[in-house]
Amino acid sequence: MTDQPFRPEARAPRGFADKRAATLRAERRIVEQVSKVYEQWGFEPLDTGAFEYADALGKFLPDSDRPNEGVFALQDDDEQWMALRYDLTAPLARFAAQNWETLAKPYRRYAFGPVWRNEKPGPGRYREFIQCDADTVGSARPEADAEIIALAVAGLEAAGLPRGTAVMKINNRKLLNGLLTAAGVATEGQKLGVLRAVDKLDRLGTEGVTLLLGEGRKDESGAFTKGAGLTAKAIDSVLAFVAAGQTDRGATLDALSKVIGGSPEGDEGLEELAKIDAALKGLGVGGDQAAFDPSIVRGLEYYTGAVFEADLLLETLDDKGQAIRFGSIGGGGRYDDLVARFTGERTPATGFSFGVSRLAAALAAAGRTEAGETRGPVVVIAFDQARMADYFAVAAELRNGGLAAEVYLGSSGMRAQMKYADRRLSPAAVIIGEDEFAAGTATVKDLDLGRDLSRDMTDNAAWKAERPGQQTIPRADLVAVVRKIVEAAQ
Amino acid sequence: MTDQPFRPEARAPRGFADKRAATLRAERRIVEQVSKVYEQWGFEPLDTGAFEYADALGKFLPDSDRPNEGVFALQDDDEQWMALRYDLTAPLARFAAQNWETLAKPYRRYAFGPVWRNEKPGPGRYREFIQCDADTVGSARPEADAEIIALAVAGLEAAGLPRGTAVMKINNRKLLNGLLTAAGVATEGQKLGVLRAVDKLDRLGTEGVTLLLGEGRKDESGAFTKGAGLTAKAIDSVLAFVAAGQTDRGATLDALSKVIGGSPEGDEGLEELAKIDAALKGLGVGGDQAAFDPSIVRGLEYYTGAVFEADLLLETLDDKGQAIRFGSIGGGGRYDDLVARFTGERTPATGFSFGVSRLAAALAAAGRTEAGETRGPVVVIAFDQARMADYFAVAAELRNGGLAAEVYLGSSGMRAQMKYADRRLSPAAVIIGEDEFAAGTATVKDLDLGRDLSRDMTDNAAWKAERPGQQTIPRADLVAVVRKIVEAAQ
Repeated sequence: MTDQPFRPEARAPRGFADKRAATLRAERRIVEQVSKVYEQWGFEPLDTGAFEYADALGKFLPDSDRPNEGVFALQDDDEQWMALRYDLTAPLARFAAQNWETLAKPYRRYAFGPVWRNEKPGPGRYREFIQCDADTVGSARPEADAEIIALAVAGLEAAGLPRGTAVMKINNRKLLNGLLTAAGVATEGQKLGVLRAVDKLDRLGTEGVTLLLGEGRKDESGAFTKGAGLTAKAIDSVLAFVAAGQTDRGATLDALSKVIGGSPEGDEGLEELAKIDAALKGLGVGGDQAAFDPSIVRGLEYYTGAVFEADLLLETLDDKGQAIRFGSIGGGGRYDDLVARFTGERTPATGFSFGVSRLAAALAAAGRTEAGETRGPVVVIAFDQARMADYFAVAAELRNGGLAAEVYLGSSGMRAQMKYADRRLSPAAVIIGEDEFAAGTATVKDLDLGRDLSRDMTDNAAWKAERPGQQTIPRADLVAVVRKIVEAAQ
Repeated sequence: MTDQPFRPEARAPRGFADKRAATLRAERRIVEQVSKVYEQWGFEPLDTGAFEYADALGKFLPDSDRPNEGVFALQDDDEQWMALRYDLTAPLARFAAQNWETLAKPYRRYAFGPVWRNEKPGPGRYREFIQCDADTVGSARPEADAEIIALAVAGLEAAGLPRGTAVMKINNRKLLNGLLTAAGVATEGQKLGVLRAVDKLDRLGTEGVTLLLGEGRKDESGAFTKGAGLTAKAIDSVLAFVAAGQTDRGATLDALSKVIGGSPEGDEGLEELAKIDAALKGLGVGGDQAAFDPSIVRGLEYYTGAVFEADLLLETLDDKGQAIRFGSIGGGGRYDDLVARFTGERTPATGFSFGVSRLAAALAAAGRTEAGETRGPVVVIAFDQARMADYFAVAAELRNGGLAAEVYLGSSGMRAQMKYADRRLSPAAVIIGEDEFAAGTATVKDLDLGRDLSRDMTDNAAWKAERPGQQTIPRADLVAVVRKIVEAAQ
């Protein structure tokens, strides 16, 4: 028996990703740009802790019935159950209820940060991801919904989705509710079943949804999903409602009013949509940016009025160049009962949430990565071990000139150092040996140019003689020459 | 028995803070400025997940001996224990070990984000806080330590601690180790006892540390801490070593060489400090910015060479205006064995870490808050309910002019709306009623000026007549007039 020390395996837990420079820079750019917009619209930042007490979080994840299902929960030393937040809305409701008396109301806040879901991990399915939310608590006005929609449009534009590359689709839960009440559907359970059926329209088509609205549907695997049990007549009116969307917001309102006709809740919903339309016009948001679409229902149970969804219109490709459907990149709506869970008093609220990692992935899949997000620093080659302090001074000089620069700090020779600079995607390397120090010069290598030139050189001797992309310059010109190379590399 | 619905109490878990605008803007400014510097020095961002497997995290928190002591841990559904990271170094060691073959080496990375410690919460004692780290993995050169030190100096300067307000104090574990070996102290446990005793010099003074180096010390409560058990002669040489610091790095090196004299490990430590000194000179880091101080040992067990600590020199005041000692705001050092826990191969590494929340608190306690961090947006008053879409267009116009602006979205009257703007610390309010719409004008109120003027007005009637800080202007001048007020309010 040997007495080997214990060596843990170096691996990240399942469903948790290590993110490196290109991903992080893209995600941070999104968060920075969106935050700037949100602050400009008067939304103030809020950051709540990672944990909430489990009873405060509630159970609003779709398809989770067991306690603590879907969340990471643990018991504190005072035996209270805490869970990592699964979204940023539940903590906001808790915060608003806790601080309601002292808040300036209506309270507009935005937030971003990781949320955690204890789901089965798989390829591309993570258990931790970054969300970014904006919400207004304390305003029942449809204009508050309109503001959130317009804010989301402006935010996504700033995040890299210019006009025409995404659209907000808007609906109102009250329309469908009114329609169902008029059709004699009374139970909340049945209404929820209808919502969930309509939510699958994209995936299952009219035929599948018709089955789910009626008796139920058997999928390819043979598994049976019980339906909402509507009558054929009720199913027809739901399908007519869902299909009432037009390209223009005003035309859709007209079409909807014909389908909904007369139930008080339905009329209320229509009136709210009309006010949202007017406010969006005031904010200059066109029908190509935000449209009414009655097929949008959103999966979450807690919405009470307007619901909306941001859909990507960009063509996205997977690794193999195949077109993939990205679909929704965010959504939200009005949830007037969430704060009341704590206080017992109805507190109107509305908000929008999008996945930062998901948007970054969508932008990457659409080929919209910014060049600056992948480049490394200028590398000062450690040519002469006795000259390290001098190389540090060179790097400092480049940094003072506004450039990103570093000295190679390993123990390898020239060839490995050039390879290192290459792997860092450095635009340039600086080489100063005894000759250069003595002559007051520096050798600068344009690494992109060097790569391009050497690709065409089959002769090793020619490569050595020409040193493609390399030039020796007066030491005083160093910052200016390197800056020119760096700027060309962007 | 009544059938009341369950109402959870709205409260954040103990030790978790809700952070609002002023705090968050200050923390984010720090992270942004520091990140910019770190990237410029060639450090690339890395973000690992919140969880690590418990065996990968290891047990490096000071004073925690039981498994999972001090961390938030839970069992995954495959029965593996996971724990939330308690710092950013352990996840880096895991990441570096996992990806060593594919990394461009030496690997420089920076990271920031929350870390979690499952400690007893108390006033000002949080269980979640933001750390910001920079590390170089794969370089044994003392120049790598020097670079980290200089980087920390540059980072803290960018974060709002200009030259003269903080100092990096540097030491090397090898010096004390060499000294102890020469004095016949052989066991690791005894050496650790000496480290922990010296670490308390600030708090206990020479007398207290002398007791802890010897037999032990009884504190005011009567609790006894066992000492390191050194001989009187060994205690004397430790105390002489600790007191050898001089104002100048070169002079300290000279003084230390006299105290250390001759042990191979001590000489190695001195040589490393000499190289660090030379590299710091190359980077233009003066003795006032980074000094050698043999009394710095750092609490963590895993350091193997250079250790350093950033000390605040600013005068800081508590809420009552009393001077408080903030002390260390960050630290780091060389830890050549941490990656080897996984791989079995020694992998040299060095890094610096500081607490973002702690630095923000220090800057606030020193009265160095930026004005922009507290101001709210311009508020467009909802004077006429039928004109909401027009008010939205006004807010959009202000935002297009680069200003932060919002429309009041509640249902209260004028007085409450002005109070709301006041509470948001808005610089200005815009009032447009039917008269103004008809005349093509707008009324703008400078809220700071209004507050100043009305402070001197005891007569309510005069206040009403004069409307302090209020002016009616042509509608076309709105953005320009409001911008002037906002700029004056910064």
